[in-house]
Amino acid sequence: MKSARSKAELGPAPGETRDREEGLAFMPKFGADGLATCVAIDASRGDVLMVAHMNEAALRATLATGVLHYWSRSRGALWRKGDTSGQTQTLVELRVDCDQDAFLALVEVGGDGGACHTGRRSCFYRRVETDGDAARLAFIEPPMARG
Amino acid sequence: MKSARSKAELGPAPGETRDREEGLAFMPKFGADGLATCVAIDASRGDVLMVAHMNEAALRATLATGVLHYWSRSRGALWRKGDTSGQTQTLVELRVDCDQDAFLALVEVGGDGGACHTGRRSCFYRRVETDGDAARLAFIEPPMARG
Repeated sequence: MKSARSKAELGPAPGETRDREEGLAFMPKFGADGLATCVAIDASRGDVLMVAHMNEAALRATLATGVLHYWSRSRGALWRKGDTSGQTQTLVELRVDCDQDAFLALVEVGGDGGACHTGRRSCFYRRVETDGDAARLAFIEPPMARG
Repeated sequence: MKSARSKAELGPAPGETRDREEGLAFMPKFGADGLATCVAIDASRGDVLMVAHMNEAALRATLATGVLHYWSRSRGALWRKGDTSGQTQTLVELRVDCDQDAFLALVEVGGDGGACHTGRRSCFYRRVETDGDAARLAFIEPPMARG
């Protein structure tokens, strides 16, 4: 006997969730804004360089060329990382998470070895320090020396 | 003489961008949906466990309690990680990126040591393999044994 529950109550069909999470089909899921999060990791050092966004075109271009492409939310444009900065990112491996709406890109960095437009290796160069209700930042990585 | 350019043309004032990127004030920036991306890293092993989202309440609760809270987009609710799974995440250090719209949480994992609801340590247990235009997934991490 068929369930009388509506599709909204059921959510995705059980088979669909299982396929997405346990299957071998690549079914990238983009949000209502057409974007998915991509975390870039330094393939040799293993640390997080940056968090950015990809739309479907950026993902396709990344896989087709082996060079990281993102979607720039501030400029509203496809962005081949390194085009202006020289800080290219060559794809070593792309991973996808359980529900296929986030990517992990293991990359080799070109140019000066940095990923951040502020001149640092990683965009995550400050930590949050709390004191009661107050929160302040502290630097953990200085800018790289510029040649 | 004052510039005749409109605020829209100018974007954020130069001082505002500099403060956000080079200052010590914590000025977390949430998107139009009220959310910012948070990447959880295993503090002892250094690898990425999961990517999730925080709204301002989740960020405040995380800093106030030292236990990771996220915003569940699928459930539309504040979510203290581990409440149902036992897979708690204790905050060791929180980092923020250059424009303060993404967080990196270094965490100690509780429960069975996993972060993924599928029973794996990390949500990133598959890599993308390409062959011409076709893309398929391959497993890189098996599920943990359940006791």
